[in-house]
Amino acid sequence: MENGSKRWGFRANKSLGSSSSITVRGVLNLLVDSLNKEDTREVVPLAHGDPSAFPCFRTTPVADEAVVDAVRSAKYNHYSPTVGLLPARRSVADYLNRDLPYKLSPDDVFLTLGCTQAIEITLTVLAQPGANILLPKPGFPYYEARAAHSHLEVRHFDLIPENGWEVDLDAVEALADENTVAMVIINPGNPCGSVYSYQHLQKIAETAKKLGIMVIADEVYGHLTFGNTPFVPMGVFGSIVPVLTLGSISKRWIVPGWRIGWLVTSDPHGILQESGVGSLSLFPFLRVYELALFHYVGIEWLCDHGSKPFVVESIKGCLNISSDPVTFIQGAIPQIIDSTTEDFFVKINNILREAADICYKKIQDIPCITLPHKPEGSMFVMVKLNLSSLEGIDDDMDFCHKLAKEESVMLLPGTAVGMKNSLRITFAIEPSVLEIGLERLKAFYERHAKIQ
Amino acid sequence: MENGSKRWGFRANKSLGSSSSITVRGVLNLLVDSLNKEDTREVVPLAHGDPSAFPCFRTTPVADEAVVDAVRSAKYNHYSPTVGLLPARRSVADYLNRDLPYKLSPDDVFLTLGCTQAIEITLTVLAQPGANILLPKPGFPYYEARAAHSHLEVRHFDLIPENGWEVDLDAVEALADENTVAMVIINPGNPCGSVYSYQHLQKIAETAKKLGIMVIADEVYGHLTFGNTPFVPMGVFGSIVPVLTLGSISKRWIVPGWRIGWLVTSDPHGILQESGVGSLSLFPFLRVYELALFHYVGIEWLCDHGSKPFVVESIKGCLNISSDPVTFIQGAIPQIIDSTTEDFFVKINNILREAADICYKKIQDIPCITLPHKPEGSMFVMVKLNLSSLEGIDDDMDFCHKLAKEESVMLLPGTAVGMKNSLRITFAIEPSVLEIGLERLKAFYERHAKIQ
Repeated sequence: MENGSKRWGFRANKSLGSSSSITVRGVLNLLVDSLNKEDTREVVPLAHGDPSAFPCFRTTPVADEAVVDAVRSAKYNHYSPTVGLLPARRSVADYLNRDLPYKLSPDDVFLTLGCTQAIEITLTVLAQPGANILLPKPGFPYYEARAAHSHLEVRHFDLIPENGWEVDLDAVEALADENTVAMVIINPGNPCGSVYSYQHLQKIAETAKKLGIMVIADEVYGHLTFGNTPFVPMGVFGSIVPVLTLGSISKRWIVPGWRIGWLVTSDPHGILQESGVGSLSLFPFLRVYELALFHYVGIEWLCDHGSKPFVVESIKGCLNISSDPVTFIQGAIPQIIDSTTEDFFVKINNILREAADICYKKIQDIPCITLPHKPEGSMFVMVKLNLSSLEGIDDDMDFCHKLAKEESVMLLPGTAVGMKNSLRITFAIEPSVLEIGLERLKAFYERHAKIQ
Repeated sequence: MENGSKRWGFRANKSLGSSSSITVRGVLNLLVDSLNKEDTREVVPLAHGDPSAFPCFRTTPVADEAVVDAVRSAKYNHYSPTVGLLPARRSVADYLNRDLPYKLSPDDVFLTLGCTQAIEITLTVLAQPGANILLPKPGFPYYEARAAHSHLEVRHFDLIPENGWEVDLDAVEALADENTVAMVIINPGNPCGSVYSYQHLQKIAETAKKLGIMVIADEVYGHLTFGNTPFVPMGVFGSIVPVLTLGSISKRWIVPGWRIGWLVTSDPHGILQESGVGSLSLFPFLRVYELALFHYVGIEWLCDHGSKPFVVESIKGCLNISSDPVTFIQGAIPQIIDSTTEDFFVKINNILREAADICYKKIQDIPCITLPHKPEGSMFVMVKLNLSSLEGIDDDMDFCHKLAKEESVMLLPGTAVGMKNSLRITFAIEPSVLEIGLERLKAFYERHAKIQ
C-alpha cells in the first residue's frame, strides 16, 4: 500500500465521524495502552460495566450449579434451534410476565448471545435503504457501530440531565420522518444511571405511537435499581405501541461472560405479526420490513409463509444465519431463573446502592466534575467535566489518558458515549476499591487544578 | 401491505437465485414440516452433521469436567477479551502446531463462536465493493448466505466426483480475476466425505499463489478421517500462500452446541501482517483489506496503528463489534485439549468408519442413488439421484419431502449444497439407526421405482 492512499483512507474515515466507529471496547483498549506499567498500585477499573471479578459481585451458586447440571446431563451438546430451546424461552417469557399486564408466550422470545446480539439482530432487521433510527445521546455506542455496519442512518435525540436524563420528546418528534423505523431507550440508563418513571415511559409510548414507530427498549440493566423510582418495563405499554424488549442475564446475575440474552416482541396486539393493509395504515414502518425478508429467508420459506408475520419472520431469518447461545446454558436457564432467590438480587442492589452513594458523595469533593443527577439504577453515572478548572487537559479523552497513566484509574471518556467533555464512571465495583479510585481521581484533580 | 408489492417482492427474491438465501438450517426447517406426525416410528436424522444426541457419540467426560471446573472457579464470569483468552489461544495454537512445520503463536489465533462465526468474520472482512470469492460446488451453503449478506460476489468452481471430489484447479484459474480475494476449501469435505492428499493441497496452494489469492481452509472436520488418506492441514502450505484456517471443537469433540471455534492466520511469512509495497506486489489482494479498516476500527486506533497489520487488524475490528464465545468455555479449552486422550478420538473415528462402511454397502442396494466416491472423512457422502429410475418424483427437493413424509427419514437435498438432483447423507449417527434409515430409503425407492 502506498502512503498516499493510506493517508487518504484515514481522512475518509475521520470524515465519517467518531460515533460511527467507536465502541466502549475499542476505547478501553486504547486506555489500557496508557497505563503506566511501573505503577505498582492495582488498576481501578471505573470504565466498564463488568463487576464479576469482585468477590462481592460473585453470581449465585444456584446459577453455577444449574450450568453444571446441564453440562453433565449431556442433553445439551447439540446445535441450538434457531430461536432457542423452548423451555428456556418459556422461562424467559414467564420471568418477564411477572411485570406485565398481559402474557408473553414463548414464541415472543428469541434467545440471543447476550443483549449484544439482540442489538445486532434488531438493527440488522431494521436496516433498509433510506431507513433511519433515533438513538439517545448520551447512549451506548454499540448501537452506532452496528447501525453504521448495516448502513442504517442514525439520528440522535438528547437526554436531559436536569430532568433526570429523560428523553427530549420534542426532539424525537422533530427528528422523526416517514423513514424512521424506531427509537431506542435504555432503561435503567447506560450511561446515566437514570430510571424512568411510569409516566415518562407512557409519554414515550404515546409519542412513538403518534409517529408510527416502534420502541426498542434496552433493559439489560432491568431491575438493577436502588433509588426511589421502581423499574417499569417498557413492555407495559406494548398495547400502546409495539415494543422490542432487549435483555439478558448478564447484568442482574453478574455473568456477562455467559452470553445469554433475549429479544422479545412485547406486542399484545400482534402488530409486528401482521402484514395486512390495516396494520400498514396504523404503522407505516411495516413496509420497511418487507424488504428485510429478501435478505434472510429462503425462497421456499417465503412462498410457504407469504402471508405470515414480517418483523418476526425477519428476526428468525436473521437468527438463521447467526450464531446461537450455547445450548447447555440455554438448558440451564429455567433452573437459573426459577431457583435464584430474591435475597441474591437484594444483596446485589444493596451493594450497588452503597457504591452509588459513595460515588455521589466523593464526587462532591472533586471540583472538576459535576454530577447532574444522583444515579438510581444500572451501574453508571455521567459527570460533566469542567475543563476550565484544569490546567493542561485538552478534553475528556486527554483527561482519561492522563488519569490512566498517572493514577492507574480507568474512566470512560464521554466522547465514547456521544457526550464530549463528560465522563462515564461505573460504581459497580467493590466499594472499598471504588473509594480508592475516587481518592486517586481527587488527587489527580488537585495536581492539575488551575491556580486561581 | 398491498398484494401487488408483496408479489413483486417474491419475484424479486426468486431472481436472486437459491444459493444466496438457502441455509442447511432453513431447508431442514422446511423438511420437518413434511414429517408425518402420525408415523409412530422414530425419525431418522440423516440430514445434518450433529451426532451428539446419540450415546455412542457422547463427548469425553474430560471435556464436561473441564467446563464444570471452569464454571465453579468463578474466574470466568467476565466479558471475554476481543480476541479470546490468552491461555485458550495458546492452547489452540499448540494443538494446531502438532501438525505444522512451523510454529503458530497465540497471536495467530482468534477464538470464535464455533466455525460458523469464523466463516462470518472471514467473509465480512473480505467483503468489499467489487471483490469476489471462489467457493466449491458442492459446498456448505452458509458461505453463500454470508457472502450474500455482505454483498461479496461468489464464483463457484466444481469439485470433481471422479477424482475424489478434488478441486477443479483449471476452473479456479479461469474464474479468478484481479478482484478475487480468496478461495475456500473444506477438508475433510462437507458435503462429500473427501479427504485431500498432500499433493492435491500443495497444488491448491501453488494455484492460489499464482493467482495472488489466499486460501480459506475450513477444517471443522479436521482429523475426522478413517480411510487411506491422512488429514493434512492446509496450513502446512502456509509458506507458499497465506492460509486462514477455520476450525472448532464442535465436530471432533462432538459438542457443536458449545460454540467454540477459531480463525487462525497460518501465515509463517507474515504476509497478512504486512502493509508495505513489497507485499502488495506479491499479493495484490491486500488493497482490498485497506477498505475493510474503515468499517471496523476507531479513529484513534487507526492513527495509532496506521503502520500495523491489515488483515489481522480488520479481523480484530470485526470481532470488536461481534459477540464472543462464552468465557468459561474458553477457560476450559486448555484442559479440554490437553487432557483428552487419543482413545476418545480413535473411538469416534472407528464408529464413523463403521457407519461409513454401512452407508457405502447399503447404497449399492438402492438403484436410484449412486455414490461416486467412498467417504474417507467428515460425516457425509454426496450421492447422485437418478430420477429416471423413479416414478412421480420431480427433483431432489421433492424426493426429500416425500421421503420425510412417507418414511420419517430426513435427507438433505443436494440443491441446498449447490448440486441439484443429488442428496447429502450423513452417516454420523448410531450405526444401528443408520441401518434402519437406509432400509427405509430402500423401501421408499422400491415403492417409487419406475416399472421397466
